[in-house]
Amino acid sequence: MRNFDEHTITAAVLERLQGAANPRVRQISEALVRHLHGFIREIEPSFEEWRAAIEFLTEIGKKCSETRQEFILLSDTLGASMLVDAINHRLPQGATETTVLGPFFVENAPDAALGADISPGMAGEPLFVEGSVSALGGAPLPGALIDVWHSDKDGYYDVQRYEQGGATALRARLRADVAGRFWFWTIVPSFYPIPDDGPVGDMLRAQGRHPYRPAHVHFMISAPGYERLVTHVFIDGDKYLDSDAVFGVKDSLIRQLERRTAGTDVDGKVVDHDYAVLRYDFILSPISRREREARLS
Amino acid sequence: MRNFDEHTITAAVLERLQGAANPRVRQISEALVRHLHGFIREIEPSFEEWRAAIEFLTEIGKKCSETRQEFILLSDTLGASMLVDAINHRLPQGATETTVLGPFFVENAPDAALGADISPGMAGEPLFVEGSVSALGGAPLPGALIDVWHSDKDGYYDVQRYEQGGATALRARLRADVAGRFWFWTIVPSFYPIPDDGPVGDMLRAQGRHPYRPAHVHFMISAPGYERLVTHVFIDGDKYLDSDAVFGVKDSLIRQLERRTAGTDVDGKVVDHDYAVLRYDFILSPISRREREARLS
Repeated sequence: MRNFDEHTITAAVLERLQGAANPRVRQISEALVRHLHGFIREIEPSFEEWRAAIEFLTEIGKKCSETRQEFILLSDTLGASMLVDAINHRLPQGATETTVLGPFFVENAPDAALGADISPGMAGEPLFVEGSVSALGGAPLPGALIDVWHSDKDGYYDVQRYEQGGATALRARLRADVAGRFWFWTIVPSFYPIPDDGPVGDMLRAQGRHPYRPAHVHFMISAPGYERLVTHVFIDGDKYLDSDAVFGVKDSLIRQLERRTAGTDVDGKVVDHDYAVLRYDFILSPISRREREARLS
Repeated sequence: MRNFDEHTITAAVLERLQGAANPRVRQISEALVRHLHGFIREIEPSFEEWRAAIEFLTEIGKKCSETRQEFILLSDTLGASMLVDAINHRLPQGATETTVLGPFFVENAPDAALGADISPGMAGEPLFVEGSVSALGGAPLPGALIDVWHSDKDGYYDVQRYEQGGATALRARLRADVAGRFWFWTIVPSFYPIPDDGPVGDMLRAQGRHPYRPAHVHFMISAPGYERLVTHVFIDGDKYLDSDAVFGVKDSLIRQLERRTAGTDVDGKVVDHDYAVLRYDFILSPISRREREARLS
């Protein structure tokens, strides 16, 4: 095969993929070539624009490190991550909606007891978080594993403070009680910018976009026989709820903070300072056929 | 804007691009989002496949260095480079066809006189290259600048031998004579694999493809008032002419080597060894409206 022109080259490349041993590799490669060529045909890049695209991707690669994943930021800011998330979570009506994992999740966070304070000694407005984990239909899920993580009052995660000697904070693993309930103390998180000192930040500026995410608390909740739930709870009233840089906000995930004054009761004790309360009741769906099949294969 | 699902997120991302100051940035960003989302919707990647894509791109970035451009290899092997080349060279009938620049071009190669040997002391079959540069319609282009570069008999370019102490070789800049003619001595190049010890090599293997390019000599030819011509001349009979890993072959660019025995005459002198002759007459087209406008803007 030779003599390709701008009209015939796509068929020529597709023909070259017929020898792929794995049918899924072939399927993905074919789709990639068709959509990539369609993109090029639509924008008709100059040679200089093609070079700029090569350099943009190369700079993104250079920015990646152990603590920074610039290609995930690219995927997030182009809405690709949320689209992949949506496709993989066609959940039954009533199940808690999902959103992106984000770049600040850490495996094996420290265990915390129900009622613990995961913000020891940190400045910020005290926050009591409470809620429950149940199955679709209402049955509580005792002992469900709850990973929680969020930013501090200035919008930074602990991992972003590591280089300045910061310790693990504002993240923990809890177990729901026998009634599927959970509760803990922390501080109110802030909105924050995604890291924007790299090529993706340059892209956002060129596109006239800000890099901010509205304030939220991340949750990852697992229980045997149920789909693992990765989601956030957003704080109502945040000015970035309608323009999240990574398109993660869903109405069903927004909750208002309730403000309580010193002397009111929570967790069986009287509290001696003003505080806020965030409540969310999570509903997990049974493992889907798609996920069951994937586990068996 | 919030509450996106797999059907509405594309419109939401497109709306976010309306603030781009530069209309071309907006156009390219919009097309990128539509085609990227279309690709994702078609293949419905699992979370693990999305992660694998992020890692593939990250590995490509890590492989890039001063002497290796893995993203260009990706563009080349997906046919994207040749498509961009074709779109930018909608040439009038009769002009020499173009092909990719490739990763082995070097700016400011050494000057060589007409008739020089650009392969001093190198093993290989002697090759006499000759030809002419003229305009569409037939007028010769005296003094046209001719960059030429090619691989050695084992398929390696000089830049690939630098780390082993190799010197510049098999590359030069010549000037056409008053009649637009050029000629020089070198050795016959070999087919060769594109560098395949990185992620793009892994991709080719997964797609059941070989990494080879048929033997060729690169030419870049410039003359004032004419479009710069970037092309190759391929050697007829090469076993990879029909499966070039980067889709660069066009029939009009293939030429047969003519074999001559010792004692025959070339360049006004009798040659004392057997040799091959490669001839190509290049035809340049006037600068296009598109290019003129780009230069004025």
